[in-house]
Amino acid sequence: MIIVLKSGIGDDAIEDVCRRVTEMGYAPHIIRGEFKTIVAAVGEERGRPDLRLLEAVETVESVMPVQQPFKLASREVRPEPSEVRVNGVAIGANPIVVMAGPCSVESEAQVQEVADAVKSAGAKILRGGAFKPRTSPYAFQGLKYLAEARKRTGLPVVTEVLETESVELVAQYSDILQIGARNIQNFTLLRRVGEMGKPVLLKRGMATSIQEFLLSAEYILSAGTPDVILCERGIRTFETSTRFTLDLNAVPVLKKLSHLPVVVDPSHGTGHWDLVAPMAKGAVACGADGLIIEVHPKPEEALSDGPQSLKPSKFTQLMRELKPVAEAVGRSL
Amino acid sequence: MIIVLKSGIGDDAIEDVCRRVTEMGYAPHIIRGEFKTIVAAVGEERGRPDLRLLEAVETVESVMPVQQPFKLASREVRPEPSEVRVNGVAIGANPIVVMAGPCSVESEAQVQEVADAVKSAGAKILRGGAFKPRTSPYAFQGLKYLAEARKRTGLPVVTEVLETESVELVAQYSDILQIGARNIQNFTLLRRVGEMGKPVLLKRGMATSIQEFLLSAEYILSAGTPDVILCERGIRTFETSTRFTLDLNAVPVLKKLSHLPVVVDPSHGTGHWDLVAPMAKGAVACGADGLIIEVHPKPEEALSDGPQSLKPSKFTQLMRELKPVAEAVGRSL
Amino acid sequence: MIIVLKSGIGDDAIEDVCRRVTEMGYAPHIIRGEFKTIVAAVGEERGRPDLRLLEAVETVESVMPVQQPFKLASREVRPEPSEVRVNGVAIGANPIVVMAGPCSVESEAQVQEVADAVKSAGAKILRGGAFKPRTSPYAFQGLKYLAEARKRTGLPVVTEVLETESVELVAQYSDILQIGARNIQNFTLLRRVGEMGKPVLLKRGMATSIQEFLLSAEYILSAGTPDVILCERGIRTFETSTRFTLDLNAVPVLKKLSHLPVVVDPSHGTGHWDLVAPMAKGAVACGADGLIIEVHPKPEEALSDGPQSLKPSKFTQLMRELKPVAEAVGRSL
Amino acid sequence: MIIVLKSGIGDDAIEDVCRRVTEMGYAPHIIRGEFKTIVAAVGEERGRPDLRLLEAVETVESVMPVQQPFKLASREVRPEPSEVRVNGVAIGANPIVVMAGPCSVESEAQVQEVADAVKSAGAKILRGGAFKPRTSPYAFQGLKYLAEARKRTGLPVVTEVLETESVELVAQYSDILQIGARNIQNFTLLRRVGEMGKPVLLKRGMATSIQEFLLSAEYILSAGTPDVILCERGIRTFETSTRFTLDLNAVPVLKKLSHLPVVVDPSHGTGHWDLVAPMAKGAVACGADGLIIEVHPKPEEALSDGPQSLKPSKFTQLMRELKPVAEAVGRSL
Repeated sequence: MIIVLKSGIGDDAIEDVCRRVTEMGYAPHIIRGEFKTIVAAVGEERGRPDLRLLEAVETVESVMPVQQPFKLASREVRPEPSEVRVNGVAIGANPIVVMAGPCSVESEAQVQEVADAVKSAGAKILRGGAFKPRTSPYAFQGLKYLAEARKRTGLPVVTEVLETESVELVAQYSDILQIGARNIQNFTLLRRVGEMGKPVLLKRGMATSIQEFLLSAEYILSAGTPDVILCERGIRTFETSTRFTLDLNAVPVLKKLSHLPVVVDPSHGTGHWDLVAPMAKGAVACGADGLIIEVHPKPEEALSDGPQSLKPSKFTQLMRELKPVAEAVGRSL
Repeated sequence: MIIVLKSGIGDDAIEDVCRRVTEMGYAPHIIRGEFKTIVAAVGEERGRPDLRLLEAVETVESVMPVQQPFKLASREVRPEPSEVRVNGVAIGANPIVVMAGPCSVESEAQVQEVADAVKSAGAKILRGGAFKPRTSPYAFQGLKYLAEARKRTGLPVVTEVLETESVELVAQYSDILQIGARNIQNFTLLRRVGEMGKPVLLKRGMATSIQEFLLSAEYILSAGTPDVILCERGIRTFETSTRFTLDLNAVPVLKKLSHLPVVVDPSHGTGHWDLVAPMAKGAVACGADGLIIEVHPKPEEALSDGPQSLKPSKFTQLMRELKPVAEAVGRSL
Repeated sequence: MIIVLKSGIGDDAIEDVCRRVTEMGYAPHIIRGEFKTIVAAVGEERGRPDLRLLEAVETVESVMPVQQPFKLASREVRPEPSEVRVNGVAIGANPIVVMAGPCSVESEAQVQEVADAVKSAGAKILRGGAFKPRTSPYAFQGLKYLAEARKRTGLPVVTEVLETESVELVAQYSDILQIGARNIQNFTLLRRVGEMGKPVLLKRGMATSIQEFLLSAEYILSAGTPDVILCERGIRTFETSTRFTLDLNAVPVLKKLSHLPVVVDPSHGTGHWDLVAPMAKGAVACGADGLIIEVHPKPEEALSDGPQSLKPSKFTQLMRELKPVAEAVGRSL
Repeated sequence: MIIVLKSGIGDDAIEDVCRRVTEMGYAPHIIRGEFKTIVAAVGEERGRPDLRLLEAVETVESVMPVQQPFKLASREVRPEPSEVRVNGVAIGANPIVVMAGPCSVESEAQVQEVADAVKSAGAKILRGGAFKPRTSPYAFQGLKYLAEARKRTGLPVVTEVLETESVELVAQYSDILQIGARNIQNFTLLRRVGEMGKPVLLKRGMATSIQEFLLSAEYILSAGTPDVILCERGIRTFETSTRFTLDLNAVPVLKKLSHLPVVVDPSHGTGHWDLVAPMAKGAVACGADGLIIEVHPKPEEALSDGPQSLKPSKFTQLMRELKPVAEAVGRSL
């Protein structure tokens, strides 16, 4: 950490800051510039007080970190990319993994129809929302429908867990536990999910910086599971022609900072079905390890997020178009 | 709702949209412009399918709402301002209500010291975080400390409830249940809290639009409690010189759209203790009904958010300075 | 336009709004909903007063447009895509067009070295900043260096025009006139440039919505030139790990709304040379017609924007990698 | 500057960076942490190469400034606040200075009517847009109308200068030269205006950080004029219920970092006339030295920005309400 002191303070104040740094367990190094004096605090930060507290000291102007605040998630600790394996599917390996399914599970027939369609188009994982905040009475049924579709198609299932109370229930039915964008900083839930040891798909929040995103991943990793998949799904900006601004820059930035696999959700990220295909191709070309895409047999009658869902026929066409894009960047599909 | 059709579509497509509108329970009105045809769908939206689903229809360009999607929270339904009463304190009445206390409850002594200090400076409600995600083992103790401080000082207590599991526990100890910024769209929690019938302090999320904010308030109101206090606490923007951008514009906008009382949190909103006083004054001058402010006896040793906490002496000074500002806009303090 | 009236107003107020709409030259249609009354104003907006002025009327809640405010730039007026032709290079045709060169022209040798390198790697247009705000004395020389490089390599040149005063000068030396992000709403400059009749590369501003972007293009088109190339170059968001957030979503959105060709600048858009290659591939995969990329022989000694510039060897490698991506989406390079 | 090196690099790379730092004229200090090595570069930055160029070196992770990049505008160089004096009006002194007038000058009668009204309500400076991009033929006339109103009322005039070409012309008629939000980084214009020696009102751009804002002020100051007034006028965020998000936090932040006076424009900042009064009061309460407000006799017929203009009667009422707010924070009006 670099502690920048206010201009014009005396040696007493510098000494005071150094004393505090030492008491917090770090070694202070003073550097006197022409206008500013800084104190570099050297030492492992884990298990020691947070130096940023010194911003509450009146002679301190700011405290600046010089290293990323996450470790288990970082490339520095693990230079080679991780692979998350689920029932024979490896996310983060060479093949691009496409997860597809309906936003909300509505009926057994709907899930079966979509599951069959996305499987035959080449999807490797079935996605589906079993719990919706307003429909929790039917929650258990949604999970069962997904489980039946998994049995029938052999596709592993990813579904969201909304609350700590239902982590164990969802873990019984789902192969990958999804943390939704709204829970990105629900640390109790992150820990509980991390303790299950199952793979986790972690969605970036709509106002979550990449650094915060990786800190949330770190939280899950430190709870026990090594299998975290990062998912970019759009951030909130001033632009309103898309529902969110799908931030594809996050893909290479995350791959640079972290060894964890990265997938992209162009359905939620854009909010419009006709933007899903181009953004899916863009995601694969810029380095994503996978995609998560909403498919619904009748989008105009969907219980949620119909306008961003692809019909099965359009999904099949997209899968055909994605294959050469994957190959162009040295991946298979 | 206004359904804008794509240019160049034929009468068949217009008919098809009108048929869908009728089937969904609304009355369609066609208006043909020089370039665009629109269909206005008239009818009460509660209890009917969401017309925005029509965006999934290929001939539809967009669906635009013409009225705010909340009702119980709106000025149109209740023109006069609401007051939320807690143990003799009325939030939304003429006097500005200041809530103050530590970000995190750390010890019995700390809470007592702060509670005494803020009470004697004129605060009317004690705030304090009893649960912190990483310290849940001590949670229950934090609530007890707050309850003891309430008993000693007579100040009602506001504290955050982080999870549905702990709603009942917190409700036993707290006079106002706070929903934090991260839970603004945790609808299960909103409903559970609304069902308790106790006053709720609802904090705007850092990427929550004002319309979404009022929709979350509506969710609580429709669960049963009439007593919701809205709290502006900063949104995320590109500006980094403040931790968030405290959006004081939200104060008059919320007052215009809704009858609910509005308070402002300049501590979280700015992240810097030396910005708390000016922004607190700004908030009162632009119409806020109250403030929520972090006070800590030793900010540089706080377990959380020290850099944005006021020392008791600075809080006392702020209260003195706020009084004439409140009076200047016809309020007392 | 849809004029939404405030709730609870009487027939007099509705009549008053209709009268104003009629006086402004439009035909009013009243639609009475259960809570709101709206007035749809039908009529061509060009050459008539702006209906949004009615927002200043106290009984009016809001005025909502139902159609895009641009026409010459729109797909509705011209469904087939436009091609901009410059010395035998067609931007918007099947081949992806890569424009490359230094951010700032620093010396004759530098321009020549870069021009030769990017040409042999396959770039079709030479880019270079001749004017920098702080170096205007050397401006003319920068233009001459570019012109010499054009003569030697045969590559057409694109360079920015910063001020109305220098439009004619730049037009003598440059094949495409670039409007920088900071001038996106400098309407005097847009008009002056549009009157030259030369192709224009229009960069989106860092806080410019897609609708405003197309309005600026419309302004140039209406001044006389039919040849406008739209350039996405990053918007400002809360994310700081990239200099800007390159908004690739803008590519398919612009292609949907407009017939104009779209190119992407991954150098300015990300601010980091190691993000240029993945984002360039992403741009091509999601439908961009071209790229504009900064290349510098010694980025660490560049007068500007070194950290985002590619060395010639890395640019050559990128061009090799882009070819299969272009082919995967049915384009050549 | 702090140069953070990549993890795992050897002593050769550290030496190489130190050599580059020395060659650029700074003194390098190496600090070896447990994971990262940093090099602190000490030395005056003016007149030396920009150390951030080192981000283009492959072994460098990032370059972080430890001091603000502006000097003439900073509190560190000039601790006491500046006052800008215009014809006997001092902006930055104790009295709050209100500037008011129409967005666009439309006719001699309109300017006279507004000038008389705002003067009698207590405004000290007349504002008005003489040049509008699309009406430049009438520009000169607009300036003359403003000059006549100045003569008649004695109010000094502030008006925007849009282009370097018209700086001298505007300077003949205007007492304060306004730089609009769109020109905040038009450095040629900033320099030209700074060279005139007249007071300058500098509006923050809608995507301009506070640091960039002060850098633009620095640019004007270094061109010669000591009299720069900073104007907050709203930034672009995801929130759409206001036209921009007026960032009142900028007021205390600017006052902390700089000695320059700060005024606020609640008309452009919010875009709605009914938000002008509360935000004007908020601005004064949080420390603004003045306000700039749009007043129009018939907002619903204004040529521009009618919906955000106050009628003279509402402006008069606002001035009455502002007086006690100013006094509450120790200022007069």
